[in-house]
Amino acid sequence: MAEFTLHPTLMADCHVLGTLELSQVLLHRNASVPWFILVPEVEVIELCDLSAMERAALHAEIDTLSARLREDFPITKLNVAAIGNLVPQLHVHVIGRHETDPCWPDVVWGNLPDGPTWPESKVKELKRSLSL
Amino acid sequence: MAEFTLHPTLMADCHVLGTLELSQVLLHRNASVPWFILVPEVEVIELCDLSAMERAALHAEIDTLSARLREDFPITKLNVAAIGNLVPQLHVHVIGRHETDPCWPDVVWGNLPDGPTWPESKVKELKRSLSL
Repeated sequence: MAEFTLHPTLMADCHVLGTLELSQVLLHRNASVPWFILVPEVEVIELCDLSAMERAALHAEIDTLSARLREDFPITKLNVAAIGNLVPQLHVHVIGRHETDPCWPDVVWGNLPDGPTWPESKVKELKRSLSL
Repeated sequence: MAEFTLHPTLMADCHVLGTLELSQVLLHRNASVPWFILVPEVEVIELCDLSAMERAALHAEIDTLSARLREDFPITKLNVAAIGNLVPQLHVHVIGRHETDPCWPDVVWGNLPDGPTWPESKVKELKRSLSL
């Protein structure tokens, strides 16, 4: 595969935390909700086109981020989604939601108002806790 | 596990097509987009709490529905998501999207206007093609 390049929209919207086995791990800059995005370094754009090994690796990475969200943030629900209507590069949102967040119970896509950004210390702490 | 009961909101919004290995297969009544929902017959509410075997079965079922959407409908993108902010019973949306559908490129949740319903013949045809 040619060198993997992150889609410019993802690059603009997110901090790049690092890379796990299959995927780059991003953190959405809007700190109103803890919002990770996994970007598998593959060419396919649909989950069902991943190989079995890639799929298994992606699931493990979703679980890693889910555990992180549960441990580090006061969340009550996880939202996990592969949408890609605007950014076709395969990416999976792993988001922690809470009844007090700014767009609960609506989905974040298209509904999350502008919010604060993450302090640099929190970005570093997340990198450390994910061993990135 | 006690007898599995489908959440009343899912029951109201969807046709129940049948049951695969792990999950009930629903078809959203709004025929503006082809929109399946898998409801694993489990008690957990998050993907990351499924056992490895349940997770594998769910993935296979997502792939089955993805293939059906690609073969039977003029779609250009799949949307796959476990959200559950309003209906906590674990369920996974598997939706076929197209640039001409009524809320493209927005997500369907909260954005899809009322639309036509599926003809009974199409519901039956989908049950047959999914061997349900």
